[in-house]
Amino acid sequence: MGSDILPKAVKYENGQLIFLDQTKLPLELIYEKQETLEQVYNSIKTLKVRGAPAIGIAGAFGLLISMKNHINNSVDEFIKMLKSNGEYLISSRPTAVNLSWAVNRIIKKAESVEAHTSEELYKIIEQEAVYIFEEDKKICQNIGEYGQDLICDGMGILTHCNAGALAVSELGTALAPIYKALDNGKKFKVYADETRPLLQGARLTSYELYSAGVDVTLICDNMAAYAMSKGLINMVIVGCDRVAANGDTANKIGTMNVAILAKYFNIPFYVACPSSTYDNMTLTGKDIIIEERDKKEVTHFSSCQTAPENVNVLNPAFDVTPNELITGFITEYGIIKPPFIVNLEKILNNR
Amino acid sequence: MGSDILPKAVKYENGQLIFLDQTKLPLELIYEKQETLEQVYNSIKTLKVRGAPAIGIAGAFGLLISMKNHINNSVDEFIKMLKSNGEYLISSRPTAVNLSWAVNRIIKKAESVEAHTSEELYKIIEQEAVYIFEEDKKICQNIGEYGQDLICDGMGILTHCNAGALAVSELGTALAPIYKALDNGKKFKVYADETRPLLQGARLTSYELYSAGVDVTLICDNMAAYAMSKGLINMVIVGCDRVAANGDTANKIGTMNVAILAKYFNIPFYVACPSSTYDNMTLTGKDIIIEERDKKEVTHFSSCQTAPENVNVLNPAFDVTPNELITGFITEYGIIKPPFIVNLEKILNNR
Repeated sequence: MGSDILPKAVKYENGQLIFLDQTKLPLELIYEKQETLEQVYNSIKTLKVRGAPAIGIAGAFGLLISMKNHINNSVDEFIKMLKSNGEYLISSRPTAVNLSWAVNRIIKKAESVEAHTSEELYKIIEQEAVYIFEEDKKICQNIGEYGQDLICDGMGILTHCNAGALAVSELGTALAPIYKALDNGKKFKVYADETRPLLQGARLTSYELYSAGVDVTLICDNMAAYAMSKGLINMVIVGCDRVAANGDTANKIGTMNVAILAKYFNIPFYVACPSSTYDNMTLTGKDIIIEERDKKEVTHFSSCQTAPENVNVLNPAFDVTPNELITGFITEYGIIKPPFIVNLEKILNNR
Repeated sequence: MGSDILPKAVKYENGQLIFLDQTKLPLELIYEKQETLEQVYNSIKTLKVRGAPAIGIAGAFGLLISMKNHINNSVDEFIKMLKSNGEYLISSRPTAVNLSWAVNRIIKKAESVEAHTSEELYKIIEQEAVYIFEEDKKICQNIGEYGQDLICDGMGILTHCNAGALAVSELGTALAPIYKALDNGKKFKVYADETRPLLQGARLTSYELYSAGVDVTLICDNMAAYAMSKGLINMVIVGCDRVAANGDTANKIGTMNVAILAKYFNIPFYVACPSSTYDNMTLTGKDIIIEERDKKEVTHFSSCQTAPENVNVLNPAFDVTPNELITGFITEYGIIKPPFIVNLEKILNNR
């Protein structure tokens, strides 16, 4: 393409950490240099950076730059401060698994090596943060390569929510096959569900695809059946938050709607699934607890009230798509087909 | 209940015409007395009154009150002015079939009777406007009676868009069975799809049901599968804009989504269908042309821009639900079951 053209959630260049302020999208593209621990904490807390893998990467580099002023301290003092800063950073999004995972990986690395100076230690954890970033990019590249084989000239592809460059690293997960297919000169169209209530599809997906030169069409969530009935959609690709052992898949609310519609119209439905989202301790979708979010997200948009103040509201953050509706999982190790209970374990857990 | 508690789109009391300004809902309940032809024209044009049957009723009474100052003219002059005012009024929403139908019915009535004075003629067309209103109320009452038989204690009922009191006369069509069941003391819950892009479900349906004391829960359109998967929905009732000879049904965009989800979860899907919406000249849904609306409705939410300015958009106003997904039509003559191609004609066209 290259991926150079894509907006980047997190950049680390010449020792400087830069976040894209996603709360300003799609109206303004503002990159903010991150200089202090507090600034990184606030950027994560206020969703300037969002998307599970992107938050992990942001946390690793955020912890790193918070240590810049401590390279003249003793190694012991440095590690003590590293742990304290890490703990503080994790508290910015306490339920984000990737954030604590990445921060703890940096801390463990610092504890596991023998360094003579804090400056030396700084270089080691900088390298570890870069590894985390590079590993994520490599996963996205692989998902993109495997997934782009499914895309043919003339196709229409529907996606839901945002599992693109803005949520992950370079290429995203669900959008990685799309960027790779574009790179390979394939001609196709993408339809993006706007994804109520928080409109990640409108604000982020349509923005990043449009910026990258993809032929993208925005639709309201309730227009998917219409688009399918008119023959506009030949494949669905979505991201995921968690995949149970039997292949039941939790993802952004509305994903199950799309999967059922795809089944009705005989359209293949793929889930882009980095192996890290496969959770073989969760046996089926029934074991996944669905977080209910603030009702104001449904009764209001931005500052505008659209429903009576006191009306009851359902606002589940996720739904669980039954495995029977899923054609395959696009992973960094290849495309996994049913029976999922056997093949997910074989391919993802034995690595 | 009674229906007295419901907000009313149009009121005609003691010779005075009053519209509810629906553009202010759900934040303000403002009834506006209509005093001139121009005011009625603007109220219809700016969607203060909307919903096909409600516009017809508004047009009939609007034409009537525009003649108040002409009752001292000659009968010939009165009829000439009536036609001219009617023509002007129809131009406020030229594609609204009910508006021209109701206005023309008033004009035809005036032309067909022998009146000695314009004052006499005024009373005759006033009576005709009242008949139009009463006939619509009676249709809604009948739909409500037949439909309420389907509602049992403990049920959850999903509806889409607004086919309630605000769109029709007293009870609405899709919501009439709900109001009748409430009247009969049944205990049930209603789930209202917010209905993007124009949010009639959030702004109007959740408002009118909440005002009437119905236990209503607002959801985003993409949450319907989640609600169904959790066993919250036992029946779907929607309104319709046009029913083809084979039962294919055009209604607000998103209706087909709900119908497909209902099929997947084995939930009965009913269409409330006044006989006036049955069109046996349209053989199947394929013959129904779908209007595309302004893309700004999708790229913006209320006045707030949510997507890149130049992104492509689909914005079909309607979709067509295939007859195979419809359990039955709730009409003023009873509930019509398959085979629709036979039974719709038999019950609706031979009246």
